[in-house]
Amino acid sequence: MKVTFITTGGTIDKVYFDAKGGFQIGESELPRMLEESHVTVKWEVLELMKKDSLDLTDEDRDLLLETVEGLDTSRIVITHGTDTMVRSALHLQGVPDKTIVFTGSLSPARFRASDAVFNVGAALTASQCMPPGVWICMNGRIFPAADVQKNVDENRFERSPRE
Amino acid sequence: MKVTFITTGGTIDKVYFDAKGGFQIGESELPRMLEESHVTVKWEVLELMKKDSLDLTDEDRDLLLETVEGLDTSRIVITHGTDTMVRSALHLQGVPDKTIVFTGSLSPARFRASDAVFNVGAALTASQCMPPGVWICMNGRIFPAADVQKNVDENRFERSPRE
Amino acid sequence: MKVTFITTGGTIDKVYFDAKGGFQIGESELPRMLEESHVTVKWEVLELMKKDSLDLTDEDRDLLLETVEGLDTSRIVITHGTDTMVRSALHLQGVPDKTIVFTGSLSPARFRASDAVFNVGAALTASQCMPPGVWICMNGRIFPAADVQKNVDENRFERSPRE
Amino acid sequence: MKVTFITTGGTIDKVYFDAKGGFQIGESELPRMLEESHVTVKWEVLELMKKDSLDLTDEDRDLLLETVEGLDTSRIVITHGTDTMVRSALHLQGVPDKTIVFTGSLSPARFRASDAVFNVGAALTASQCMPPGVWICMNGRIFPAADVQKNVDENRFERSPRE
Repeated sequence: MKVTFITTGGTIDKVYFDAKGGFQIGESELPRMLEESHVTVKWEVLELMKKDSLDLTDEDRDLLLETVEGLDTSRIVITHGTDTMVRSALHLQGVPDKTIVFTGSLSPARFRASDAVFNVGAALTASQCMPPGVWICMNGRIFPAADVQKNVDENRFERSPRE
Repeated sequence: MKVTFITTGGTIDKVYFDAKGGFQIGESELPRMLEESHVTVKWEVLELMKKDSLDLTDEDRDLLLETVEGLDTSRIVITHGTDTMVRSALHLQGVPDKTIVFTGSLSPARFRASDAVFNVGAALTASQCMPPGVWICMNGRIFPAADVQKNVDENRFERSPRE
Repeated sequence: MKVTFITTGGTIDKVYFDAKGGFQIGESELPRMLEESHVTVKWEVLELMKKDSLDLTDEDRDLLLETVEGLDTSRIVITHGTDTMVRSALHLQGVPDKTIVFTGSLSPARFRASDAVFNVGAALTASQCMPPGVWICMNGRIFPAADVQKNVDENRFERSPRE
Repeated sequence: MKVTFITTGGTIDKVYFDAKGGFQIGESELPRMLEESHVTVKWEVLELMKKDSLDLTDEDRDLLLETVEGLDTSRIVITHGTDTMVRSALHLQGVPDKTIVFTGSLSPARFRASDAVFNVGAALTASQCMPPGVWICMNGRIFPAADVQKNVDENRFERSPRE
């Protein structure tokens, strides 16, 4: 069992780059995180995109889908910006036979105080414990992609409201 | 569902305290970690002990057992020093109907580079995904308490050698 | 940990009752199944309704919701007719902190060849392995309630089509 | 994801074959069970042995190990007699990166009242929900191979006694 990590950008990989307070997506922090956490599960990291998730296009999501479908691994963690994470997760619904876990962070991994490392630990664990399907791991919870939304005001993920 | 965290000490909560390079166990970093990670699962932290795990006695382990048995929650994460984590985990074998997950870290949570936050994220996730029993979450893996050992030379946890 | 089974009726509990080929919902077969399967997990069975799932009303679903919310157990298996299983499952979305697993069968448990016992074994297992949320266990799979539909033509459950 | 079932014999596949009350291991009932249960997970059945588990030799267990190691699937269910199930499960400890679930039954699957189908439903579910490792699914529970024993007097599986 090898776990494949795919990075798409998002806050988790943001770096502060100038005096004007701008941010850009840097090299992924994932390999560092996995090494510092002494992960002994076999893993690989595919740095697929470096985008703010608000800038992801339909073509980007199709590329992500093709990439996932083309993997010979069945456990996949995808780091992604939180703003459109649900949309991308829904785009991967229907991929058979793979456990796909999206995560990201509300603060950059390069910040001293960040949820990034916690979320990656959670997502790697979920990728080993959850059945095939598409999941979002945020806020210490595991959500089915079809039943989660970002509450922008509260800056957290939560289950969809009851119908 | 509320997750109960019990802290016993160990490297995860160590603080550097003097010029001679000594360490001692400080206030638990757990509440800070859970808050910074924006955990929305209900949780409580019981700071039970502040010991290097090599100093834990049989009485300490009995106290841990009694504490766990007395909880009305069924999902429990225990932070613990790594040196005798397996021994304490085995001491809790047989507690019925609770999912008990031990974790800790190889570097103090107060260090900039540490596996502490990652491991807590993993353990909280495992406490929600694993059936009743006693588990150890380290190195990105989930081990049954009865089938894990610390490889001191390699400074990692691994399954027991095949019989 | 005690698992609460709630029965609502459905094919799983149907009995053949007259020469004209009629069926009605009988006493639940669940206690017999759990005993014959030598289940040692603590369990209780609440026989809540005996209805064909096409006859379930909004009031019935509200009663089911209230019943679940009132339980002090956190692992729940609900047997239910397949025709409106998804609708009832969605009605329970949002119940916090409980792992709720719906199952049922395509053939009555009283038939020699039936998927009933298999499905109950699967659902009891899922109730121990899945995180809080609402799930449907049918056809050897575990579906999130928000991402499953009954394919009536094929007489099976499957994930919702990709958007 | 395809689940590979391996049959080794045991009570689950016993058939009554003569007036003197003898039993022998027949063709595996597994394919019939999976079909009658309308399983839509992809599966294959390897009928490896037809032995009472008391008759399994070290060579048989080595063959089982080689077979498992040679599979390109990572989710495996093994049907096995209960008397030496734990021993065979321990023999497979250390196989990396596969979720291996043993099950069997206390009564033959060909009996009207049997735990066989229930156990197969449970094992197939566990093979999708449990992380890599070796597990035993009996009595509605999931045990780590390293922490289970058959209680012969009570005719059930249970966790090992606390140390």
